[in-house]
Amino acid sequence: MTAPLYDTMAVIGCGLIGSSVIRAAVAAGAVGRVTVADPSAAVRERVLALGLAQSVTADPAQAVAGADLVVFATPPLAIGPAAALVAGALKPGATVTDVGSVKAAVAEAFAQVLPANVFAIPGHPIAGSEDSGPDAGFAGLFHGRWTVLTPQARDDAPYLAAVERLTAFWRAMGALVDVMDEKHHDLVLAVTSHLPHLIAYNIVGTAADLEEVTQSEVIKYSAGGFRDFTRIAASDPIMWRDVFLANKDAVLEILGRFTEDLQALSRAIRWGEGDKLEELFTRTRSIRRSVIEAGQETAEPDFGRRHSEE
Amino acid sequence: MTAPLYDTMAVIGCGLIGSSVIRAAVAAGAVGRVTVADPSAAVRERVLALGLAQSVTADPAQAVAGADLVVFATPPLAIGPAAALVAGALKPGATVTDVGSVKAAVAEAFAQVLPANVFAIPGHPIAGSEDSGPDAGFAGLFHGRWTVLTPQARDDAPYLAAVERLTAFWRAMGALVDVMDEKHHDLVLAVTSHLPHLIAYNIVGTAADLEEVTQSEVIKYSAGGFRDFTRIAASDPIMWRDVFLANKDAVLEILGRFTEDLQALSRAIRWGEGDKLEELFTRTRSIRRSVIEAGQETAEPDFGRRHSEE
Repeated sequence: MTAPLYDTMAVIGCGLIGSSVIRAAVAAGAVGRVTVADPSAAVRERVLALGLAQSVTADPAQAVAGADLVVFATPPLAIGPAAALVAGALKPGATVTDVGSVKAAVAEAFAQVLPANVFAIPGHPIAGSEDSGPDAGFAGLFHGRWTVLTPQARDDAPYLAAVERLTAFWRAMGALVDVMDEKHHDLVLAVTSHLPHLIAYNIVGTAADLEEVTQSEVIKYSAGGFRDFTRIAASDPIMWRDVFLANKDAVLEILGRFTEDLQALSRAIRWGEGDKLEELFTRTRSIRRSVIEAGQETAEPDFGRRHSEE
Repeated sequence: MTAPLYDTMAVIGCGLIGSSVIRAAVAAGAVGRVTVADPSAAVRERVLALGLAQSVTADPAQAVAGADLVVFATPPLAIGPAAALVAGALKPGATVTDVGSVKAAVAEAFAQVLPANVFAIPGHPIAGSEDSGPDAGFAGLFHGRWTVLTPQARDDAPYLAAVERLTAFWRAMGALVDVMDEKHHDLVLAVTSHLPHLIAYNIVGTAADLEEVTQSEVIKYSAGGFRDFTRIAASDPIMWRDVFLANKDAVLEILGRFTEDLQALSRAIRWGEGDKLEELFTRTRSIRRSVIEAGQETAEPDFGRRHSEE
């Protein structure tokens, strides 16, 4: 049996992602001991009951003491304050990372509050589900999914070795690992994740507020496309509130472009410009093919899921 | 063996839905003979090769001659012209229906061009997939899905009997059947299907046009929510062009509300109004629960599909 990559891992915030990191890391033999800090008594109780950690506390500073790897898995805006809270208690040489969906804000917080003798490497596993909480996590969550690391602009050997070790950690959990600049990460994710969630939340809200169409009708006929949006719009409210606030600039920039395009589309419908509609719809169809070819989606029928309206 | 509900069924336009109606109706023993008309030589060839019909022609009038049930399964805007073309060839007493996603335009076309001695009953099975063409159809497509019929404002006994028979036809194929006014149908579907498709087409188009984020990055990180939109945005371009043109008023009305709500959301992000975001995101989450409870979505994990970003 090989030695674990990290003797002790501290997970700060133990919801869907935090508990999945624990399950996956333990299953892979990538960590020895696990400590957890969570502000919720109910969550701490579940973590104990599920046997996820050797030590569970409300105090993040207590959880990180002696830890070789610290993983912040709180909602994005809570990461900075939590990092400030534990800064004095970190073990010299520890690797400090996170799993937040926004990276520039975390990178800045880490740079401001963490001591120079730890290795700060922000990270983001692009995986999740519509469920939340420690019971929702599972070891296979990261399998075949991308995790993006956004290391600091350092090229000293110990730091590079720490990045390499953290990369090995994610790979041990079955993830594919990519490295990029935190600002670019936030722009890419604004397109592929944050805007889709914003749009889904918005359309479900619009539908709920209609007077002419009842909510039960919306639900009854949701197979026509709406259903897919309800799934996305069921994601954790606090986490997503934080994502939009923490990635405001990129989200508003992408949203502005989306709105411009939507106005043009609206105008084409109003004036009956069928050729413009057909051109766009043909173009987007070819993008779907690329997604399938890239293996981000199976091409196999899955009749319970993929029906859209026709 | 019971007699079929209709001795001869003519299907005008044999793509995903038309070919699925044939497969399902034949499997259920609901029809005897099947005739098909399609303007595409390639489609006609596939229909013959698949053995879907006893007679295949390019001429709709020839296909409907002697048919007891005529099903228009062309893109929405082609239904009116096709109905005008066959009007003189229809068998007296025949039932004429369609499977288009927009109903007011079809109801109007039927009322204008069809003779008084046939029973015109527009219909819409809310089922489909991202694939198109006669090879994509399958007998189970309508199983457990709603089909909406929008009968004319007639209450003579022969017409009501024709509606009852058409209802039995859809039920034989496993569908749930609902009856409503065509204008209400178009408003409900504008919310649950047409707007979701428009939004999905738009966001995929916006993403494709970005200079700062490459298309391969968009595809690589599509698991964060974008992927679900690419599936919807891969639907048949011609059919969807027609849907937006044929249901212009309802779509623009719902789109206007969506855009208003989106502006308010954008403003809340810009001004950091986290409470407003959290309130909406909590509300939309509860709608998802209703969708699951209504059985429009299984609550069971389906890890290949339901991952959204976190």
